Amino acid sequence: MERIEHRACFGGWQDVYRHRSETLGCDMTVGVYFPPQAADGPCPVLYWLSGLTCNEQNFITKAGAQRYAAEHGIIIVAPDTSPRGNDVADAEGYDLGKGAGFYVNATQDPWAKHYRMYDYIADELPAWVEADPSASDARAISGHSMGGHGALTIALKNPGRYRSVSAFSPIVAPSQVPWGEKAFGAYLGEDREAWKQHDAVELVKSAKEKLPLLVDQGDADEFLDGQLKPHLLQAACEAMGHPLELRMQSGYDHSYYFIASFIGDHIAHHAKALRAG
Amino acid sequence: MERIEHRACFGGWQDVYRHRSETLGCDMTVGVYFPPQAADGPCPVLYWLSGLTCNEQNFITKAGAQRYAAEHGIIIVAPDTSPRGNDVADAEGYDLGKGAGFYVNATQDPWAKHYRMYDYIADELPAWVEADPSASDARAISGHSMGGHGALTIALKNPGRYRSVSAFSPIVAPSQVPWGEKAFGAYLGEDREAWKQHDAVELVKSAKEKLPLLVDQGDADEFLDGQLKPHLLQAACEAMGHPLELRMQSGYDHSYYFIASFIGDHIAHHAKALRAG
Repeated sequence: MERIEHRACFGGWQDVYRHRSETLGCDMTVGVYFPPQAADGPCPVLYWLSGLTCNEQNFITKAGAQRYAAEHGIIIVAPDTSPRGNDVADAEGYDLGKGAGFYVNATQDPWAKHYRMYDYIADELPAWVEADPSASDARAISGHSMGGHGALTIALKNPGRYRSVSAFSPIVAPSQVPWGEKAFGAYLGEDREAWKQHDAVELVKSAKEKLPLLVDQGDADEFLDGQLKPHLLQAACEAMGHPLELRMQSGYDHSYYFIASFIGDHIAHHAKALRAG
Repeated sequence: MERIEHRACFGGWQDVYRHRSETLGCDMTVGVYFPPQAADGPCPVLYWLSGLTCNEQNFITKAGAQRYAAEHGIIIVAPDTSPRGNDVADAEGYDLGKGAGFYVNATQDPWAKHYRMYDYIADELPAWVEADPSASDARAISGHSMGGHGALTIALKNPGRYRSVSAFSPIVAPSQVPWGEKAFGAYLGEDREAWKQHDAVELVKSAKEKLPLLVDQGDADEFLDGQLKPHLLQAACEAMGHPLELRMQSGYDHSYYFIASFIGDHIAHHAKALRAG
């Protein structure tokens, strides 16, 4: 493990690490914000999953989350969005391959060798983080777009693992939209039954834990009607009595200006759950 | 004039415009944040001058200033740092030519034709901004590094024009450091008397207005000893009885993580002066 960035920020430290992922079979970069409180003892951890084309830099430079993490004493872990390296399979286009891991374990060639982002986020990354004495095992998870899909599905599939979950502009039903159909078809193959295990709308139908979902969605988001379709999640939650707070935000688009505007609310939401335990 | 970005942010709008600058003889891009209060009447304006290599994007995407501007009802105008375009002179290296206008009016070839950033920032840009009914003529100015130099020198040279001034990691004595010697030698020629009109440490000695200076400087800044030298400004201010609040910030470097950590203090400082008038 190597620390490649270390910058004072809101009284704490915004670091970036490079570590070897056995799950992914490659080196990965990870942003970790340590709030000032981390100097005095273990802090709870919010995992942030980014969207298509992102690496660990987008969230740590653009979201302005460190201010709120410092206020609430929360560590924020922001990993990359896919395996990386010259021997990792890739594809034309921004929505498959590098930068587009979709938080699943690929079963199809040529993806199966490295594209195991589900196991990386759900298991290997928390184990790596929690080996640090400044991190507790109180976990929350959030993300944006493809990362919102990742946060919702990983939380729904792992009852008891996360104390809270939220998402910005998530892909709630990847099985029903072009981004998801392309990625799941490539990574998981054409058997759509396998896709249901990574589709928030499907997972809500069998969720063993009624973890409340907080979702912010801009109504001027250019991907709203074609890729995101939050009403599908709303309908599934209503049918199952699954608690959902879906906030349609007037005038906001899909950008980090939207995330920056509401990340404070999300961190307060997670802090309440993380500090209550 | 053309609006090329328009994004909801903290209840207001982060816009980017392209407009023709007669002063610079080229098209320029400018970031403008309109807080929610701008919908109801004129708001005061903070001009932000960025540092070497930056364009209008760096500040608007990384500083997190919109939150505070929305709280205080302040418009923030973030221009580019040099003239741009295929017919604009440039040089090898990041510290001369495009992205490195140094907020002076060049007198030497090949720079004199377009490099008139002083006139652009001090005169043309405010006139353009204040033609919009949502902007008042209450002005504040701030900036980072080369832009901190710009903010201090433009405020000191124009008594009564700005209600407040501040800087992050400013080049306080360009006449005495490598960045300034290279740029001023190229833009202004070898007569060092001419340089004094754009050197904050020199300008403090003859300032007609004792406008208080707020300066934040990280003590882990990689350019502190070689290029920034805030003690020279401190000594000049002490000698002249010019009010200066120089805050050395422990552990902070030259990055936007530093700016993000303290921009809220600066905007509160400017809001107090802007709203008092």
